[in-house]
Amino acid sequence: MIAGIELGGSKTVVAIGTAEGQVHEEWRFPTSSPAETFQQAISWIAERGTPESIGIAAFGPVGVVRGRDSYGKLLATPKPGWADFSIIGTLQAAFPQARLTLETDVNAAALAEARLGAARGLDDIAYITIGTGIGAGILSGGRLIHGALHSEFGHIKVPRAPKDSFEGVCSFHGDCLEGLASGPSIAKRWGLAAADLPADHPAWAMETWYIAHGILSLLGIASPSRVIVGGGVSQAENFHQHTEQLLHSIAAGYFAPLEATPYVVAPLLGQQAGIKGALLLAGI
Amino acid sequence: MIAGIELGGSKTVVAIGTAEGQVHEEWRFPTSSPAETFQQAISWIAERGTPESIGIAAFGPVGVVRGRDSYGKLLATPKPGWADFSIIGTLQAAFPQARLTLETDVNAAALAEARLGAARGLDDIAYITIGTGIGAGILSGGRLIHGALHSEFGHIKVPRAPKDSFEGVCSFHGDCLEGLASGPSIAKRWGLAAADLPADHPAWAMETWYIAHGILSLLGIASPSRVIVGGGVSQAENFHQHTEQLLHSIAAGYFAPLEATPYVVAPLLGQQAGIKGALLLAGI
Repeated sequence: MIAGIELGGSKTVVAIGTAEGQVHEEWRFPTSSPAETFQQAISWIAERGTPESIGIAAFGPVGVVRGRDSYGKLLATPKPGWADFSIIGTLQAAFPQARLTLETDVNAAALAEARLGAARGLDDIAYITIGTGIGAGILSGGRLIHGALHSEFGHIKVPRAPKDSFEGVCSFHGDCLEGLASGPSIAKRWGLAAADLPADHPAWAMETWYIAHGILSLLGIASPSRVIVGGGVSQAENFHQHTEQLLHSIAAGYFAPLEATPYVVAPLLGQQAGIKGALLLAGI
Repeated sequence: MIAGIELGGSKTVVAIGTAEGQVHEEWRFPTSSPAETFQQAISWIAERGTPESIGIAAFGPVGVVRGRDSYGKLLATPKPGWADFSIIGTLQAAFPQARLTLETDVNAAALAEARLGAARGLDDIAYITIGTGIGAGILSGGRLIHGALHSEFGHIKVPRAPKDSFEGVCSFHGDCLEGLASGPSIAKRWGLAAADLPADHPAWAMETWYIAHGILSLLGIASPSRVIVGGGVSQAENFHQHTEQLLHSIAAGYFAPLEATPYVVAPLLGQQAGIKGALLLAGI
C-alpha cells in the first residue's frame, strides 16, 4: 500500500493511492499539535493497511537531506510546538517497514505539476506559490533539488518597483520578495486583500514587477524551462500573462529557456498538487 | 587514457590525467578559430594515445543537456565564428570511441573545488567567478545542475547599492548583476581597473553589496552550504570576509546554511580549477 501525507500549516491531507499520483481515498483535517496531527494521520493510514512506502510533503523549514542530523525534523518554524518535531521519527516508529520520503510542500507540488499537471513531461521546472508566504520548488534534470537545506525563495531580494517605498512585512528582512509581494504585504500596503483588489488597481503592476524579478532570479540560477505560479495571489485576472510580458521585457531576449511559450503558467492540479506530489514521492 | 579540455574565451587548455582530477601533462594555447583550436587540441591528445573518456569545460552559452538539439553546441555567443559550432560533433568525429562529457566552465570549476579544493567533501556548493563577466556553477546533492540551459547568474537583478546611479555595462540589461559588478563595470564606474583600486576605495563597499545580494539569491534558490568566489575582482584584500559580513547582515539570521562559517571563501585550485574539473567530468 502506498500512502501520502501533506502537512500544511493549517490543514493536513492523508491519502492512499498509487506511486503515480492517483488518489484512491483521502482525508483532509485541520492541523493541530504535532502529536495529535500525526496520531490522526497514522490511525487513518493504519486502518487501511500497512504502507510499504509513504511520501510526505511538509511545510518548512524542514530537514529534507538524508543523513544529516536535521533530517526529518521541523526546524526553526514560528509555528508553536512544531520546532524540532521529528516527522520521520514519528512515522518510522508507527510503520517500521515503510520506506519514507520527505520533501518540502513546494517541491512536492513541483513534482506533481511536472508529472501530471501544467509542466507535464518537462524535466526542468519551478513551482512558485504566492499566498501568506512565497516559496518555490525546483525540479532540475528530472530530480527535485534542495541543496543543503531547501529553497527559501521568498527571502531573496529584488530591485524595488518604481515609486514603491513600502517597508515590507517580513519579520526578518522587511523588504525581501515575500515582504514586498506576499498576500499580507499586499493587504498592508493597499488596505485591501488581494482578492478584493480590482483588476485595474495599480497593486497588480507592482505585484507582477516583483514576481517577474523573482522569476528572473530563478531563471538565471536554476534555468527552468517553465515556471508554474500558484497560490491565492496568483488567481488575479491575467496574472500569468502580465507577469510573463514583464519578464520578457526585463530579460531583453537574453535567456534561451524563455523562448518556450507560455513560460509562466497557472497550476493545473489546484488543491490536489500537494497530496499527489506526496504519493509521487512515495514512488521515487 | 583520460583527457580534459578547457575551452576559454582567450585560452584553451588540454590535459591528460586521471578521472580523479590529477593532471599528468597539460598544454595551454591561445583560443583562435573553432576549427583551428579543436584541430590543435585533437592533435595534441591523439599524439598521446586514444582517449576512452574526455571531459570538456566550455565557455557559454553552450548546450549541455544531452538529448536536446543544442547539445554540444556553442549557442548565441558574441565571439565571432563560434555560434553553432559543435564541440561534441567535432570531438566525436576525431575520437569515435571516446565517452564525451560537456559542462560549462563554471560548473567544471565548481566540481573541481568541491572534490579537490575549497569545498572539499561538500555536496552542495556554488562557485562564482567575477571578472570580465559574472557566472556561477552549482553542485546540488553531489550533482552539477544546469536546468534547461545552464545558470546565467550574471544576468539576475539585485537591489541597487545606496547612492549608486551608474547605468551599468551589460549590453543586454544595463544594470543586471554583471552590468553593475563585473570588472568592466568597476573600470567604467570609477575610471580605474579593480586591480588598481586601493583597499579603502568606496568601490569595494559597493562591490561587496552586489556580490552579497547575488549570493543571497543563490542561497534562497539553490541553498549551497558554501560559496566559492573566484576571478580577478575577488582578489581584492579581504574581499571574501567583507562579502560574508554583509551577507550575514542582509540575511538577518534567517538562512540555516549560513551558520557554517566560513561561508564565502576563495578558490584553492586557482588556474587549475577548469582543467581539473574537465578531467573530473571525464569520470562522471
